[in-house]
Amino acid sequence: MSDLKSKFLDVYAVLKSELLNDPDFEFTDDSRQWVDKMLDYNVPGGKLNRGLSVIDSYSLLNDGRELTSEEIFQASALGWCIEWLQAYFLVLDDIMDNSHTRRGQPCWYKLPKVGMIAVNDGILLRNHITRILKNHFRAKPYYVDLLDLFNEVEFQTASGQMIDLITTLVGEKDLSKYSLPIHRRIVQYKTAYYSFYLPVACALLMAGDNLDKHVDVKNILIEMGIYFQVQDDYLDCFADPEVLGKIGTDIQDFKCSWLVVKALELCNEEQKKLLYENYGKDNPECIAKIKALYNDLKLEEVFLEYEKKSYEKLTSSIAAHPSKAVQAVLHSFLGKIYKRQK
Amino acid sequence: MSDLKSKFLDVYAVLKSELLNDPDFEFTDDSRQWVDKMLDYNVPGGKLNRGLSVIDSYSLLNDGRELTSEEIFQASALGWCIEWLQAYFLVLDDIMDNSHTRRGQPCWYKLPKVGMIAVNDGILLRNHITRILKNHFRAKPYYVDLLDLFNEVEFQTASGQMIDLITTLVGEKDLSKYSLPIHRRIVQYKTAYYSFYLPVACALLMAGDNLDKHVDVKNILIEMGIYFQVQDDYLDCFADPEVLGKIGTDIQDFKCSWLVVKALELCNEEQKKLLYENYGKDNPECIAKIKALYNDLKLEEVFLEYEKKSYEKLTSSIAAHPSKAVQAVLHSFLGKIYKRQK
Repeated sequence: MSDLKSKFLDVYAVLKSELLNDPDFEFTDDSRQWVDKMLDYNVPGGKLNRGLSVIDSYSLLNDGRELTSEEIFQASALGWCIEWLQAYFLVLDDIMDNSHTRRGQPCWYKLPKVGMIAVNDGILLRNHITRILKNHFRAKPYYVDLLDLFNEVEFQTASGQMIDLITTLVGEKDLSKYSLPIHRRIVQYKTAYYSFYLPVACALLMAGDNLDKHVDVKNILIEMGIYFQVQDDYLDCFADPEVLGKIGTDIQDFKCSWLVVKALELCNEEQKKLLYENYGKDNPECIAKIKALYNDLKLEEVFLEYEKKSYEKLTSSIAAHPSKAVQAVLHSFLGKIYKRQK
Repeated sequence: MSDLKSKFLDVYAVLKSELLNDPDFEFTDDSRQWVDKMLDYNVPGGKLNRGLSVIDSYSLLNDGRELTSEEIFQASALGWCIEWLQAYFLVLDDIMDNSHTRRGQPCWYKLPKVGMIAVNDGILLRNHITRILKNHFRAKPYYVDLLDLFNEVEFQTASGQMIDLITTLVGEKDLSKYSLPIHRRIVQYKTAYYSFYLPVACALLMAGDNLDKHVDVKNILIEMGIYFQVQDDYLDCFADPEVLGKIGTDIQDFKCSWLVVKALELCNEEQKKLLYENYGKDNPECIAKIKALYNDLKLEEVFLEYEKKSYEKLTSSIAAHPSKAVQAVLHSFLGKIYKRQK
């Protein structure tokens, strides 16, 4: 494990301990133990890219000078707030999607003694963010901006999740509801804001910047987030499961994936009929027919062309930004995702 | 309908319209309609006591002078934030409790086309509060205190809900986990903060007060909230269902009710055996045995004695408060609940 990641995990232990001894609530022994286990099960087990990128971004905004231990702690605390936010979304999304596994273990709500208590655990995870922010940032001049930022991003993510859920609900009856503009809107709200914009916005606030001045940075990060999710949709079908670490299920799950909306855009009437008849069925023959159609439509090439254009557009947008430090932050993000295989 | 309530409902229409046209999210037609229906189904259908009491309290804090229409709108908006918070808790609690009906209609998640999308709707309800606060209070000097207040109260409510869920989980195996201190803790956190403290705290902030100076007011309101919930537990078993408007189910639901913890405190070994064997069973004979035991233990009298003492303690605490206006606010709350029959 890298030194940075190990330091980041040390901060998790501190934050968890503070939450388990919160003076504004009188825990029972049972409930303290519950929260302890719930946090360990759901918060630190991911790749931690979003959280770590706050420290990375803050460091680049300070032209790479060595950060004080207080700065590292605070950037880490904000990074963990994003990881907590992610855990909150995942715990509740898994309930809504009736998922079985997450990060190689059963979903939290699937544990027999947990069940629907997971709904309240999700809420607690969200509330921990405001506790962490209050504990460590209440006296900062940018405290209210941090609260507004997390509130805005949570609102946008929940709204994106809503159109995803509703589009799937009506899409199951009528595939024509799936289109490129709706795909873009879902992805922008549900994924891009919290995964790409939020870490950089946290770093900018810590560096003393005003977010209103950085609409261009926001727009670039949102574009990057959309590109990231299109990759995700592509990899779900075309990546080697050994490399990806999981077997994609978007086709049988009736997902509003970039691949199916592209297929709908490019297909003729006969192919459209095949799509309508086979998409969203958990049947190997149907899945194979959809995959064959994707090949007929040369979606791999279409994706590679999309990827190339996205990259060119993003690099030229980044080059146009007046600050070299901000450019470095954006390049760091782009470098991590361009041409990724998993 | 009273004039005040009708004005209050007008503000709901304004707030809803703002939320459905939120510039920070691009609704699809389907999703805008969804939120519209979801709000009407879940937010305005209750008694609205919590929301209305913000206006009432703010008026009393201003010695009953006539409020400007702007003041009425703002106090109403804060009142609606509490009603939104309540709706958020109820939508999610009903899922966790596997409830069937709420306010005389099926629970939201029970509607066939809603199902688990209700989890995300609950989240949206919570997020609407921060949208309303941002729209109408962002420029106020007490904006950050409002955010902190709603965050703190939500944290305490969710934490109370957690110990309630966990206590019931272990209580089902071991009734001895139910006790007066744990009952008090659940009720204080799960109900008293948001139902009693929050409306007054909102009014105090609007009036320009600092909440740190009002720890005594908070403590009195928490005591009142606990008394209110004990009444609730009492009425669930002893009220006339015609007057109460519903048939209580605490006994078969294995609730950690004030009645069962009192019974556990007062019973002999034989009666304890009867409690352990019959509590929490959805069987008319078992329920009848528990009710007979409650009568043997004279729990109605025990409750009336508790009610008398609570009232005396509360009135003397209120009399000790230095501000006549604050006394009026507290008396107004107490008057609404003392000796209530429903």
